[in-house]
Amino acid sequence: MTPTEKLQSLGLTLPPVAVPVGSYVPALRYGNQVVTSGQLPIRDGKLLFAGKVPQDTTLEDAQEAARVAVLNGLAAIADVAGGIDAVERIVRLCVYVNSAPGFADQPKVANGASDLLADVFGENGKHARSAVGVAELPLSACLELEILAQVKG
Amino acid sequence: MTPTEKLQSLGLTLPPVAVPVGSYVPALRYGNQVVTSGQLPIRDGKLLFAGKVPQDTTLEDAQEAARVAVLNGLAAIADVAGGIDAVERIVRLCVYVNSAPGFADQPKVANGASDLLADVFGENGKHARSAVGVAELPLSACLELEILAQVKG
Amino acid sequence: MTPTEKLQSLGLTLPPVAVPVGSYVPALRYGNQVVTSGQLPIRDGKLLFAGKVPQDTTLEDAQEAARVAVLNGLAAIADVAGGIDAVERIVRLCVYVNSAPGFADQPKVANGASDLLADVFGENGKHARSAVGVAELPLSACLELEILAQVKG
Repeated sequence: MTPTEKLQSLGLTLPPVAVPVGSYVPALRYGNQVVTSGQLPIRDGKLLFAGKVPQDTTLEDAQEAARVAVLNGLAAIADVAGGIDAVERIVRLCVYVNSAPGFADQPKVANGASDLLADVFGENGKHARSAVGVAELPLSACLELEILAQVKG
Repeated sequence: MTPTEKLQSLGLTLPPVAVPVGSYVPALRYGNQVVTSGQLPIRDGKLLFAGKVPQDTTLEDAQEAARVAVLNGLAAIADVAGGIDAVERIVRLCVYVNSAPGFADQPKVANGASDLLADVFGENGKHARSAVGVAELPLSACLELEILAQVKG
Repeated sequence: MTPTEKLQSLGLTLPPVAVPVGSYVPALRYGNQVVTSGQLPIRDGKLLFAGKVPQDTTLEDAQEAARVAVLNGLAAIADVAGGIDAVERIVRLCVYVNSAPGFADQPKVANGASDLLADVFGENGKHARSAVGVAELPLSACLELEILAQVKG
């Protein structure tokens, strides 16, 4: 199955690419690499999960937020790469989790995004990853993530 | 206008490259990419804006800090690339903002740097960007940022 | 001396590569670059230094943690590059330090990793670097770091 078919079989659709607020772009291609801007758990223009994990947003909701944000990132990549099937491999994922004092399960939050990437791209979806707990995030989002991918010439 | 001419027309000069404290370099070229080390809002060897935004450093001062830090980054890039006009495109900017509890305007702070990059490089200055709120920074700086650029062969 | 010989002369050994918890890999090669996942100060499966610097982990212990984590990263790179002598150059190091309020010596912590890289790789070990203070980290580790390297074709 292609990534497009795999997305369909999972009942997922790539959202429209959000317009950035400022002098930057949602994703940028350089050579055969594409890097995204920081992606938030925004759907239909609305932030879905705000505040610190786990006190304001539960672990489960934060995992869902990671899925929403990674879909936004894939949409941004598809937009500059000529479609999601042009992705050769997901290289790196960095997940910043808005963390309440003592919260140390950033990897579990990030798995929401990593598992989706593995589901959609199979072996080519396995990536290097960093997950850290930050103090604050834009719009008080519960997480922000960025993706680096290799795309076809 | 070249980036050099554009900088002049804006009344800006690239500062001397700061000497890093440790076994690292201000910027490194690999292939046709250059990545900078984390840049602080330092001018003439002195940290300009310290502490958390917005309680210790106002939003406006933090935007100015972003301009100072991004100029330091451009100086570091120019140093290893053979001048600022060798920059083909700004690829990515990551801005870490020393954020007071509840501060969620990291993108507005980062715009200080992004707008300057767009002013100097035009379309080639539009980049992918992440902006996050961190707990502490070196020298208690109000922000730190790093730049990834493509340079001419 | 090769990096392998240099490691031996320093009395250091690359540890076995830790198995990641989730749909990601310890390090990934794309073209002639290798990026690692976030590395923790884990040895023999046990986290060595936890909590905030300097209140829970001293500055000196955090520097040792940086050495342990960077060795884990080098092991992950060697695993996908065909040995540590295949490293052409260390490009970038990012160090996230679990920072107590007011702690601003992230660069001193990161020097633990940077100095080891310079010791092992000489001039080729000098890299671009960012060091920031984060709010929380996986397993409450005192730091997390990631490495970008260029490897031989």
